[in-house]
Amino acid sequence: MKKIINKPEDVVKEMLDGLTFTYDGLVKKLPEGEIIVRKTAKSGKVGLVSGGGSGHEPSHAGFVGDGMLSAAVCGAVFTSPTPDQIYEAIKAADEGAGVMLIIKNYSGDVMNFEMAKEMAEMEDIRVEEIIVDDDIAVENSLYTQGRRGVAGTVLVHKILGSLARAGATLEEIKQTANQLVKNIKTIGVALSAATVPEVGKPGFELSDNELEYGVGIHSEPGYRLEAMKPSKELAHELVYKLKEEFNFMPGEKYGVLVNGMGATPLMEQFIFTNDVAQLLAVEKIDLVFKKVGNYMTSIDMAGLSLTLIKLEDENWLTALNEPVKTIAW
Amino acid sequence: MKKIINKPEDVVKEMLDGLTFTYDGLVKKLPEGEIIVRKTAKSGKVGLVSGGGSGHEPSHAGFVGDGMLSAAVCGAVFTSPTPDQIYEAIKAADEGAGVMLIIKNYSGDVMNFEMAKEMAEMEDIRVEEIIVDDDIAVENSLYTQGRRGVAGTVLVHKILGSLARAGATLEEIKQTANQLVKNIKTIGVALSAATVPEVGKPGFELSDNELEYGVGIHSEPGYRLEAMKPSKELAHELVYKLKEEFNFMPGEKYGVLVNGMGATPLMEQFIFTNDVAQLLAVEKIDLVFKKVGNYMTSIDMAGLSLTLIKLEDENWLTALNEPVKTIAW
Repeated sequence: MKKIINKPEDVVKEMLDGLTFTYDGLVKKLPEGEIIVRKTAKSGKVGLVSGGGSGHEPSHAGFVGDGMLSAAVCGAVFTSPTPDQIYEAIKAADEGAGVMLIIKNYSGDVMNFEMAKEMAEMEDIRVEEIIVDDDIAVENSLYTQGRRGVAGTVLVHKILGSLARAGATLEEIKQTANQLVKNIKTIGVALSAATVPEVGKPGFELSDNELEYGVGIHSEPGYRLEAMKPSKELAHELVYKLKEEFNFMPGEKYGVLVNGMGATPLMEQFIFTNDVAQLLAVEKIDLVFKKVGNYMTSIDMAGLSLTLIKLEDENWLTALNEPVKTIAW
Repeated sequence: MKKIINKPEDVVKEMLDGLTFTYDGLVKKLPEGEIIVRKTAKSGKVGLVSGGGSGHEPSHAGFVGDGMLSAAVCGAVFTSPTPDQIYEAIKAADEGAGVMLIIKNYSGDVMNFEMAKEMAEMEDIRVEEIIVDDDIAVENSLYTQGRRGVAGTVLVHKILGSLARAGATLEEIKQTANQLVKNIKTIGVALSAATVPEVGKPGFELSDNELEYGVGIHSEPGYRLEAMKPSKELAHELVYKLKEEFNFMPGEKYGVLVNGMGATPLMEQFIFTNDVAQLLAVEKIDLVFKKVGNYMTSIDMAGLSLTLIKLEDENWLTALNEPVKTIAW
């Protein structure tokens, strides 16, 4: 393992110290633990809290700020944050109108966020939750009942963040969230696995000429191992897996997010995006929102994921395009 | 070589197609070649042109837009753009008040930008140039007379872009540029070399326990090979090399840019930033501007660079903080 770190057990603390030092105008860390909150004044609106294990930077701390999350809870690397930690984030995010939890679908996350929800409710804080399960690669997985929650979660942050800033009620946000998650789907491909600092070696090994489709953001197994392919063929595989789920109809409006996994150069991300664009043009899909970059990474994994959001509500597009003040949107 | 590409000879074209597809509201590609220009209306102000070999994404196309560059010229991977290409960019950038060229100090770039400057001057376009040579690692190098131009170039784009947008004359911009480059210095460390797609293997090999200080952004040799070190020690090495150059005085105001080389996770960039912040605090340096992320990469190289800018003119800080509309600032 060759990483620019100090002690493996200190990576989350030191990373967040570096992050809050760099963006001290936008965010701060709570004294209660590894919780990043925005520095905006409280305005009586619904608060949004997300988080999960660390190692997916800039998720989720990079999306804390005006117009997106109120707080992000950062667990140890690839490990759910504790209920106490999440509870502190909920308290910090509450401005009197309740708090919405955005949870990636992993068993540990769901359990701990729901325990924290109960703790907060006992203190008379109203809390709702949405579980994001956008990864269509596999049903159930190492750490998951049902589908995993991955890069599409960032689009949920953005759209619900816009609603919250506009003063929507907790019930309205919950209702939109329910609609939204049905319309966001993701699938990925890995060229290498992530190395967790405290483990010291990659989660699995791929040879110099292998790729794996559908690997999870914690190096969970995917659905097929193959010899390396050109970008066009990777794009074809992923686009047509998504097509099966969405049942594309000509003229429909979608947004696309091409997400790098941490070690994938922008050059490759843009080449892949070009191939995706051409395939979706053949399908007569109208891509009205586009985003490319590292949003939901897996430490130093090489690979990328492709997310589509079907924009069945035109307000979602407006929400995606609104300016926000965050580190990484 | 395992990369998400199609034919190696098509990477630049396909990458730029993907980039302009994604950011079609901001930039477009000129029909004359691999030149990215902003879509803003012409306003009679000074134009800024930069560029160089591809492989440093998001540099430089990611910094084209309102408040930064007018145009970026994209050569083949790690290869200078041609004089003809640069000449087309100058013509596109000219709004009647002349064009400033921002050139990283590589012999091929300097020669070709200067030939293009002469071509433009024959067409009565006023052109000035600034050569950025911020890399303090080595004097002279594989492709360089004097010091190399690296990540600090992005800060030059930002500050001169602010001046140009405010309506400064070509002479004023040239004068600021001269002052600016003396106050920007960078030094890096590599954990691996970049793999140029058409070459198919890394520019050099480092073992699993080696790092090299001062490697260039085209995998040019650095100044020392060592066994892998903790982040704190890397930060110490780089900060004190910069100290020797700047002669830190307590209370001086600086800006810092921690730049990932392409395959370095944000986790490591923030941990390193935290270590740098602590060392500069000991030196009583006042870090009033901070930026962390992938700005001047070397394809898929693992490693990072540390840039300091001494803010001897307070207008530079204002310029760095001004909002711009670009892909990647």
